[in-house]
Amino acid sequence: MTTTLSMEHPAVNEAHRPALAPLQVPERLLLGPGPSNADPTVIAAMHRQPIGHLDPAYLAMMDEVQELLRYAWQTSNSLTYPVAGTGSAAMEATLANVVEPGDRVLVAVKGYFGHRLVDMARRYGAEVSTITKPWGQAFSLEELTAALQTHNPAVLAIVHAETSTGVRQPLEGLGAACHAQGCLLITDTVTSLGGVPIFLDGWEVDLAYSCGQKGLSCMPGISPFTMSPRAEEKLAQRKTPVTNWYLDASLLRKYWGSERMYHHTAPVNLTYALREALRLLAEEGLAARWQRHQKTAAYFWDSLADLGLTCHVEPEFRLPTLTTVRVPDGVDAKAVSRTLLHDYNIEIGGGLGELAGQVWRIGLMGYNSQPEKVDTLLTALGRVLADQA
Amino acid sequence: MTTTLSMEHPAVNEAHRPALAPLQVPERLLLGPGPSNADPTVIAAMHRQPIGHLDPAYLAMMDEVQELLRYAWQTSNSLTYPVAGTGSAAMEATLANVVEPGDRVLVAVKGYFGHRLVDMARRYGAEVSTITKPWGQAFSLEELTAALQTHNPAVLAIVHAETSTGVRQPLEGLGAACHAQGCLLITDTVTSLGGVPIFLDGWEVDLAYSCGQKGLSCMPGISPFTMSPRAEEKLAQRKTPVTNWYLDASLLRKYWGSERMYHHTAPVNLTYALREALRLLAEEGLAARWQRHQKTAAYFWDSLADLGLTCHVEPEFRLPTLTTVRVPDGVDAKAVSRTLLHDYNIEIGGGLGELAGQVWRIGLMGYNSQPEKVDTLLTALGRVLADQA
Repeated sequence: MTTTLSMEHPAVNEAHRPALAPLQVPERLLLGPGPSNADPTVIAAMHRQPIGHLDPAYLAMMDEVQELLRYAWQTSNSLTYPVAGTGSAAMEATLANVVEPGDRVLVAVKGYFGHRLVDMARRYGAEVSTITKPWGQAFSLEELTAALQTHNPAVLAIVHAETSTGVRQPLEGLGAACHAQGCLLITDTVTSLGGVPIFLDGWEVDLAYSCGQKGLSCMPGISPFTMSPRAEEKLAQRKTPVTNWYLDASLLRKYWGSERMYHHTAPVNLTYALREALRLLAEEGLAARWQRHQKTAAYFWDSLADLGLTCHVEPEFRLPTLTTVRVPDGVDAKAVSRTLLHDYNIEIGGGLGELAGQVWRIGLMGYNSQPEKVDTLLTALGRVLADQA
Repeated sequence: MTTTLSMEHPAVNEAHRPALAPLQVPERLLLGPGPSNADPTVIAAMHRQPIGHLDPAYLAMMDEVQELLRYAWQTSNSLTYPVAGTGSAAMEATLANVVEPGDRVLVAVKGYFGHRLVDMARRYGAEVSTITKPWGQAFSLEELTAALQTHNPAVLAIVHAETSTGVRQPLEGLGAACHAQGCLLITDTVTSLGGVPIFLDGWEVDLAYSCGQKGLSCMPGISPFTMSPRAEEKLAQRKTPVTNWYLDASLLRKYWGSERMYHHTAPVNLTYALREALRLLAEEGLAARWQRHQKTAAYFWDSLADLGLTCHVEPEFRLPTLTTVRVPDGVDAKAVSRTLLHDYNIEIGGGLGELAGQVWRIGLMGYNSQPEKVDTLLTALGRVLADQA
């Protein structure tokens, strides 16, 4: 007996069949806005076969990742897990879950990612209002509180660490102001988690998101997300289902919680990586990690003066993870970045939006927050600027 | 001068700071519905530092991946790229882009993933109608054509390879029937791409999606997606924006196309892996790859008889990538799976939905489509069944 079936099928079209050599990838020092270089231990963690997304060993790993994320964010939120996508998916997860059509959403815009929040909130049917600041500045608590009273939103969204400007937005007191009027607080911690002090519960933040490839020294493709009991309550009381199936926390909680109900096939190898990245963070300790970032950044800022360069953001609001450096008059910003990449294998970022052509964006995040990386960059940058002059 | 700022902050809460040992992961032979084991070359490809998502080397790799995906799917669709998420995200990408509120969507349901399509289509505002088949059967072209005439949908969604039942749904002629009445055809190829003959253009399929971790021998977390010019036309004529920002093809085309406009930070290491997985497929050649899967499956099906086991699906509609094996009377299906995992490090899947407790789901996909894997499984399964008897 045989069950072999005939394999008759039309001829295969060879038009799109390139003959390629095995993968080659240049080795870069990633000092832009992200991705940053991963910790070698984290890269090695991925170098394994996957296991099943319902394997007992994987389920145990999920619990570890959740607990480590709570430490990193300083929260006790039960719903704390990584989204199986990049940071923008985790951003969308916050809005998709708590915004219902007609909800008033206030976005405090002071850079590119504030605009992205506006775009996303509108897609989910929110009536969006905004307050704005020039790119490079932060809001005061008074300004935010006044806007809450004016707009009376159901949700306020604000970026803690604006990747487009290098600004750290102080958040102390904002959660309490939101909750005094029944508003939820969403906070973008993409460029702060693992590098800058964050106290989600202390600040009464309701929803937050981040990414793997910056302060955590992990890879892009897996992105922390958390929501508070208050945010869970709004989700539970929705009149309409969450439009976004993939990011629906009411489904995902059944996979991440005790039910272990299949939802999607987890990005297993990225979970290995994130688990190790968060373990290394817990080993180093948050206070030591934050101190390291602050010290490396201060060394960088001081050293910039030797090249005659200045920072775009005032020291008080400057992110240690990402610095916007002013492009001197007469210097071609893009040509400098291109030369750094081609001749020195160093990636830095350019300005976005209001800051296009005016700044470079330089990240010293996670594994790359080391004075040796600062020296490598400044030596190369000094040469490139001298050549251009 | 120094710009070092004081690092005063509240005390760090140590409650969620577990002290964990370095990651340990069991080595499993993954013969369930997925993830399947990755090709070792693919795993090695990930073992590199990331590079930037706008690095010229990364942009060149994106072009390679797109072209290789066109070969794998046998399509010339310009919009062919991997989604930065798992297969369910790619599934959602098809519906999210072409379904507008009020659109009639017909779903041909013959297993778990048909129901998932229904759920997702409703979330995007579709008026969904369904036709159904018992789990384990396929639709005939006549049944599908009749349903198209009855329901006159804007979109028909159907699963090519039902991961919950092991059924291969013939698709020849269906696209033409859809297009004769202005309907788009969405096809789930999650468990067929890279293992089962597919001719997207030959079959006039408009939108398709798949995953990394099955026939492609890659990792979960990056998932092929494609849409035809006809589907692009419907996207272009939408009256409402795509609700789902992350999966909006009108934004993503600007990143994957010549504009190279930043959208999200790509899952760089998974792209390394997918590029290598697709390169290996192109090297082997589609016809040879399909033949290998068919031969390995036929060997497996023949060998099952030696253990007194039978298949749930008729040979004509049986997937070579995933077989549903009937659980003999009196055998505890879950106990068998558990023992295989714990004592032999072999993962197989259980039945879902209508088939819960009635079948095991056994995958022989991509790298694991080898007669040696069949022998390993059947030796272990024989012992476990003998012990249970």
